[in-house]
Amino acid sequence: MTTPPRTLCSHLPAATPGTAVTLEGWVHRRRELARITFVVLRDRSGLAQVVLPAGTPVPPEETTVRVTGTATANEQAPGGTEVTDAVLEPLTEPAATSPAELWRPSLDVSLPTLLEHAPVLWRHPAQRARWQLAAASLRGFRSTLDGLGFTEVTTPKVVGTATESGANVFPVDWFGRPAYLAQSPQFYKQQLVGVFERVYEVGPVFRAEPHDTVRHLAEYRSLDVELGFIRDHREVLAVLRDVLAGMVEAAASEEAAVASTGASLPVVPDEIPVIHFADALALVGAPADEPDLAPEHERALGAWALAEHGSDFLAVEGYPMAKRPFYTHPQPGDQRWSNSFDLLFRGLELVTGGQRLHRASDYECAIRERGEDPVSYDAYLQAFRHGMPPHGGFAIGLERWVARLVRVANIREVTLFPRDLNRLVP
Amino acid sequence: MTTPPRTLCSHLPAATPGTAVTLEGWVHRRRELARITFVVLRDRSGLAQVVLPAGTPVPPEETTVRVTGTATANEQAPGGTEVTDAVLEPLTEPAATSPAELWRPSLDVSLPTLLEHAPVLWRHPAQRARWQLAAASLRGFRSTLDGLGFTEVTTPKVVGTATESGANVFPVDWFGRPAYLAQSPQFYKQQLVGVFERVYEVGPVFRAEPHDTVRHLAEYRSLDVELGFIRDHREVLAVLRDVLAGMVEAAASEEAAVASTGASLPVVPDEIPVIHFADALALVGAPADEPDLAPEHERALGAWALAEHGSDFLAVEGYPMAKRPFYTHPQPGDQRWSNSFDLLFRGLELVTGGQRLHRASDYECAIRERGEDPVSYDAYLQAFRHGMPPHGGFAIGLERWVARLVRVANIREVTLFPRDLNRLVP
Repeated sequence: MTTPPRTLCSHLPAATPGTAVTLEGWVHRRRELARITFVVLRDRSGLAQVVLPAGTPVPPEETTVRVTGTATANEQAPGGTEVTDAVLEPLTEPAATSPAELWRPSLDVSLPTLLEHAPVLWRHPAQRARWQLAAASLRGFRSTLDGLGFTEVTTPKVVGTATESGANVFPVDWFGRPAYLAQSPQFYKQQLVGVFERVYEVGPVFRAEPHDTVRHLAEYRSLDVELGFIRDHREVLAVLRDVLAGMVEAAASEEAAVASTGASLPVVPDEIPVIHFADALALVGAPADEPDLAPEHERALGAWALAEHGSDFLAVEGYPMAKRPFYTHPQPGDQRWSNSFDLLFRGLELVTGGQRLHRASDYECAIRERGEDPVSYDAYLQAFRHGMPPHGGFAIGLERWVARLVRVANIREVTLFPRDLNRLVP
Repeated sequence: MTTPPRTLCSHLPAATPGTAVTLEGWVHRRRELARITFVVLRDRSGLAQVVLPAGTPVPPEETTVRVTGTATANEQAPGGTEVTDAVLEPLTEPAATSPAELWRPSLDVSLPTLLEHAPVLWRHPAQRARWQLAAASLRGFRSTLDGLGFTEVTTPKVVGTATESGANVFPVDWFGRPAYLAQSPQFYKQQLVGVFERVYEVGPVFRAEPHDTVRHLAEYRSLDVELGFIRDHREVLAVLRDVLAGMVEAAASEEAAVASTGASLPVVPDEIPVIHFADALALVGAPADEPDLAPEHERALGAWALAEHGSDFLAVEGYPMAKRPFYTHPQPGDQRWSNSFDLLFRGLELVTGGQRLHRASDYECAIRERGEDPVSYDAYLQAFRHGMPPHGGFAIGLERWVARLVRVANIREVTLFPRDLNRLVP
C-alpha cells in the first residue's frame, strides 16, 4: 500500500469521508482516555483530531509525527472531520518537555521565559499569529508601493562614518578598519531617489541606545520609503496613507491570525487629519515654546483625533526645525517650523516623515551650522551636486506597528529574536 | 493658468495632441542648434523630447527641471510625441559636470569610477535597468514562495557567537560585549521551520573573507529558504526550481530593462536535471577521490547539461560529507555522500542547498565530531530537542544571480553600493 500525499490539517474537512489520508505535524496535545486516545495534530495550517485505540503509545507533545488513517466525519471534531483507524509514526526522537504547554489557549509565560525559549514558544498558535500579521504587513507594504511605481532597493548595513545622527552607533571591526552599523538607510535612499525617483527598502537598522524600554530595540526592521518630485510633505503623507491602508488590508486578509491575536485593525481614513505642531501645543494646553510633544500630549491628541475626526491616525506637521535632523526641509515662509510630520496612531508616535532639503548649497549650510565640514559628507553630497528633485519620505518600525495592532505593551513580544542592551541569544 | 498634473515621459504619447502637459525629471541631454534647442528629459519611466526656441537657457545635464508645454505629434520624437512651446523651470541649482555623459548609449567607465560615483552613474538607463532586474527578481522570489505557503521572517544580523562556519566573521562591539555580524540566517531559519514549517528571508549577510575576487562581496543579499516535512533534498530542489522560474518570469516582465541590459533570461526546465557528485567526477574525468569540483569541471558539466538536457541548469547532488557544514544530512545508505546539492547555472555555482539533520542526537554527535561542545550551541539545539521535522533549504546570492543574467563578470557592477575588503564608501 502506498502512502497518500500529505493533507494539511486545514484541508482535512475537504477530504472525502472514508478515504485514506496522511497528515504530518507536531503532537499538539495527547489525551489518553480509558477507551480511546486522542491526538491533536498541529501543522502550519491549523489543527486536526486523530483517534487511536486506547493504549497506543503516543510520543510527547511537540514530537513531529506522520499520521496515516481514514478521514471520518465527526461533528465534535475541529472542522467536522477527524482521522480514525490511525497509525502514528514518529519522525524524530521524543520531544523534551516544553517550557510551556503549547496546547493551552493562551501562552501565560513571563517575558524572560518567552525570550529565552523563543524557538519553542513561538510555536504557540496565538503567538505565531502575531508574526503572521507582521509578515502580512510586509506584503501589504511592498505591494502598495510596487503599485505606485516604487523600486525596491538594498543599501549597505555597514558604513564608514557615523555622522548621520546624534544617536549612538555600534562599532564594527572591518578588516582592521573602523566602521559602524547603519542607523538607517536615510542617506542611501535619498541618493537612490536620484536614480529611481521612488524607492523603498525593508531592512535591519541598528541603534546603540543604552536605554532599556518597552518600545526600543537595538536592532529592528525599518520600512523605509523615499520619493522625488513632490510639492511638499503632504504628498509624502498621502503615500504613507496608502501604504498603511495596504498594510491593514493585507493583515485583515489573515482572518484566523486576526481572530487568534484579538488584533483590532484600524480604518485608515481616505485623508489622514493633519494638525500643525503650534496648534497641537495650544490644543493640549502646552506652552507655545515647547520643542516636542510629551507622551501625555500625544495621548490627548489621539483622543482628539478620534472624537473630532473619527480617526485612529493624526499627523502633526511643522515640528520645530531645532528638533529635526539637519536634512529636514524648513516650512516655507517660517523657518522655525519644518515640512515634516509625526504620525500618531492611537495616541502614540508610529512614523516620522517629511520633506528633505534638495539643494547642495542648503546641505552645505546645514552641515556647517552643525559645526561640521561638508567634506566629510562628500559621498552623500555627490547626489545633490548632480541634480536632485524635491523629495521626502518616511520610515515605519515594523515591530512597533505590530505591537500596536495586537495591543501588546512590549515590542519584544512581537519580535522573533529581539536584540537589546541585554540580549544577544537566542 | 493652473499647471496640469505631472505626466510621466512614458505616458506622453497617450496625451491628446494640443493639450497642455507638465513633465518633471532630469535634463538627460541638451542640444542647442542654430534655430532650435532640444532637451531630452529623463524620469523614472523613460525619456521625452522637449522643443525650445533657440537661445533658451538650458541648465546642464542632470539638473532637475519642470517642463510645461504642449503635447505635439512628431514621428521623429521618441514615442511619436514631443513637448513644444515649452517653458523650462529648474528645480535646483545647475548640476555639476557629471563624471560620465549619461546620455550616451553605454556607460563606458572603469569599475573604480563606477563605484566611486555610484550615486550619479547608477542613473544611466542601462545601469539602472540592471537593478530593475534585481528588484523584479526579489518580487518573483517572494510571490512564488507566498503562493507555496511560506512565511516571510526576519532574523537577527548580530549574533553572540561565531560558531556557524569556518569562514571569518566581523566583530561588533555590542554595548561593550563581543558580538559578530551574522554570516547567514541558517540557524534561525531552521528554528523557524519549527514554527512556520516553510520560511524565507531576504536580508544582508556578512563574510569577512579577505580575498578580493570578482564573485565575492563582504556584504551581500541572501535569499534564504527553508522548509519542513520533506522526504529528502529532491523536494528542496523542486521548490528551488519553482523559485527560479518565478524570478525569471518577474524579470521577463521588465521588458525594457531586459532589452536595455541585453540580459539573456534562461528557460527553467520543469524538472532540473540532476547528476550525482561521483558521476559528475567520472563524467569530467576527475579522480574519484576529488572532494570538490574545480571551476573547469563546473564549466564542463554546464556544457554537458546544455548538450544532453538542453538546460542552463544542472544540480549536482551527493557532495562529500567532508566538504559540507556539520548540519548536513548524509545520504541514506552511504555516509560518505550527503543529501545536498549545488545548482550550476551556465556552468557556474549559483545555489547551495540540501537536507539538514533534524534529530537532536545527530546534532550532538556532529558537533562533538568537530571537537566542540554542544553546550555552546544550546540556543540552536533547543528547537531540535523539542521536535523538528525532516527539513532542508537553500540560499541564492542576489548579486550573483543578477550578474549571471546580465552577463557581467564582476558582481560589483550589479550591486548598488558594494562593500568589500577595500570599500566602505559611498
